[in-house]
Amino acid sequence: MRPLDNITVLDLSHAVAGPHCTYHLGLMGADIIKVERPVLGDDLRHYTEHAGLKTLSAPFIAYNTGKRSITLDLTKPAAREILARLMPRADVMVENFRPGVAKRLGLDYDSAKQWNPRIIYCSISGFGQTGVMRDWPAYDHIIQSISGVMMMNGSDGEPPLKVGLPLADVFSGYVAAFAIVSALLQRERSGGDGQYIDVGMLDALMIMMNAGIVTYRLSGEPPRRTGNLGFRLVATSSVYKTRDGYLGIGANHQPQIEALFRIIGRPDLLVDPRFADHAARMKHNEALRDLLADLFATRSAEELEPKLAEAKVPAGKVRTLAETVDHPHIRERDLFVTSSVPGLRQTVPIVGAGFRFQHDGPKRNGAVATIGEHTDSVLREVGFSSDDVAAFRAAGTI
Amino acid sequence: MRPLDNITVLDLSHAVAGPHCTYHLGLMGADIIKVERPVLGDDLRHYTEHAGLKTLSAPFIAYNTGKRSITLDLTKPAAREILARLMPRADVMVENFRPGVAKRLGLDYDSAKQWNPRIIYCSISGFGQTGVMRDWPAYDHIIQSISGVMMMNGSDGEPPLKVGLPLADVFSGYVAAFAIVSALLQRERSGGDGQYIDVGMLDALMIMMNAGIVTYRLSGEPPRRTGNLGFRLVATSSVYKTRDGYLGIGANHQPQIEALFRIIGRPDLLVDPRFADHAARMKHNEALRDLLADLFATRSAEELEPKLAEAKVPAGKVRTLAETVDHPHIRERDLFVTSSVPGLRQTVPIVGAGFRFQHDGPKRNGAVATIGEHTDSVLREVGFSSDDVAAFRAAGTI
Repeated sequence: MRPLDNITVLDLSHAVAGPHCTYHLGLMGADIIKVERPVLGDDLRHYTEHAGLKTLSAPFIAYNTGKRSITLDLTKPAAREILARLMPRADVMVENFRPGVAKRLGLDYDSAKQWNPRIIYCSISGFGQTGVMRDWPAYDHIIQSISGVMMMNGSDGEPPLKVGLPLADVFSGYVAAFAIVSALLQRERSGGDGQYIDVGMLDALMIMMNAGIVTYRLSGEPPRRTGNLGFRLVATSSVYKTRDGYLGIGANHQPQIEALFRIIGRPDLLVDPRFADHAARMKHNEALRDLLADLFATRSAEELEPKLAEAKVPAGKVRTLAETVDHPHIRERDLFVTSSVPGLRQTVPIVGAGFRFQHDGPKRNGAVATIGEHTDSVLREVGFSSDDVAAFRAAGTI
Repeated sequence: MRPLDNITVLDLSHAVAGPHCTYHLGLMGADIIKVERPVLGDDLRHYTEHAGLKTLSAPFIAYNTGKRSITLDLTKPAAREILARLMPRADVMVENFRPGVAKRLGLDYDSAKQWNPRIIYCSISGFGQTGVMRDWPAYDHIIQSISGVMMMNGSDGEPPLKVGLPLADVFSGYVAAFAIVSALLQRERSGGDGQYIDVGMLDALMIMMNAGIVTYRLSGEPPRRTGNLGFRLVATSSVYKTRDGYLGIGANHQPQIEALFRIIGRPDLLVDPRFADHAARMKHNEALRDLLADLFATRSAEELEPKLAEAKVPAGKVRTLAETVDHPHIRERDLFVTSSVPGLRQTVPIVGAGFRFQHDGPKRNGAVATIGEHTDSVLREVGFSSDDVAAFRAAGTI
């Protein structure tokens, strides 16, 4: 069995962080019941349009494949009749309303516990459920602004720069998934009650900054912005322009550096007193950088990449996302699962779990639900009659 | 009980990704037995030196607090006598040797299974255990080069830019932690055998790029590099220079934009036909950007931030990491756990789990072990006598 087979997740979240969390729970086997407001559904459906798809943006497909969708107007009193039947069957509930909204809707953890004391209830918000910023609204780039990450990305002296991925959104959703699976294991092993989990996007991003924070605590100085330099800050570990694109190289240790100098046709550098050992190279780091920049400008990244890798010098041609996803290595890694998208004849490959199990591993395929596609079937599963469903629909509750 | 109380992790990993993984398992309650080579220990100990600490770099502290350390020379035949006693007691084993090395050492999954069929064995490597790049060496910035992320970070027309965090290292370690906890839950629920988990840093980074990949698949175009623009690519959702630093603003929807224009003292823009609604603003996006840039240049980020947040316009002053960690909100969120560091009188605050549980949550404090600090006690726990330990030490096995 998969890790989360027969686990039901009631997903009241929208946008990115919450749906990204439950997408990964779904890959591990959970049944994700995505609750959307009637008519419009999740806002993310209406983001940029491609391939003529209405209400199915690319990010929505990426984060919502494999879920069932039901509509429910949580502001209607009759919504509670439906929740009263869904909650007891759910193992996990996820929401990413602004703090306080779930309580106003009568959906906070204290209410959920009345319906189901074993429920694991996870709230995801910008700043968490406590603290002076708790009520502040947030988007990914606002969290990035406040977190310090924009002052680590890029180079010293430059303006702040956002990380070119929705880092706070995507990572906080993944942190929530880790917390939820941990809580499920805790419940399973202790035989006890459920759990309440408070995930803040800003808090989660701090995980990524731990090494920088400790550096600051020990040295009194925030970490330098180091552009394209590798972790060791040496000129032999950086990114250089070649005649056919950019090449990342990572020669940190003496044997790697010897191999590098040999492969680029400059074994003489090994006996140049400026570059012969680590201490000398650190002293002449800028001279070495300029020398390497001139040298790589006349060479081919395409040719050097496999030669360096073969000689155990870490190296990688800088690729666009399009070049990467079609690379033979990525194809062999079998990273993608297929998404059946209403309105498209062909399935779309989307990134799956990002790791492999030897047995009973992550799900392979899924479909994107239309808004409320599973409302009727889910409501029938929890015991409502077709007359009940029709009445809910007539009243605008679903 | 905590989720991983009484779970033992045999951690043969070094550098960043593996130790970051087991750090988070330790926070959830697991006993982490870190295996280091005799004398030198984990390479990361010897990274940059601060506060006069030898063999205890800041990143090492960040990722290794709370673990026990034993020394073991895995190339010595007698190491197998020790592993034969440790393996049966371990629930999880983590390694991040290059693919093939564990097998050469007689430590691959097939060997581990002989000792303990219930073990969950996780390998972390640059490119995973299969595929044409499997044997290529990798560091964080090499994975970033190859993944496409350097061509998403920054702005169109600029050279590739590394994300200013060890994103591939840190995130792949976190993915491994998610995979391991999932496999522990799977083992607990199925009552079955263990699992083998293959985590590749490049694979893991693809999780972060899923929305961009689907955009590319649907549109045929890789996602644009958008600098500091927010997700919606509108001028009212970006980062602007003010007279006291930079300010991120995120006004995407009409009510947010109306509040923004009012608070910056330009309600007239609401009736300017160029900026009155979304379609008009998109048409005049650059004019609006220039107008906002001029306007913010004379205003104070410090003053505007709380006013905008109060009016439900997402906004955040761009902070350095040093400003963030000392912010009252972060202090109230109680994100940090303390690390007792040998050689320092005061404990060092390090980032903990990054989320909160209502009960039985992540561990609060820990210490950093010296190299092999727990060799004797761990060996005694698994039944070796003090004479045995002395003999292993004399032979250089530990």
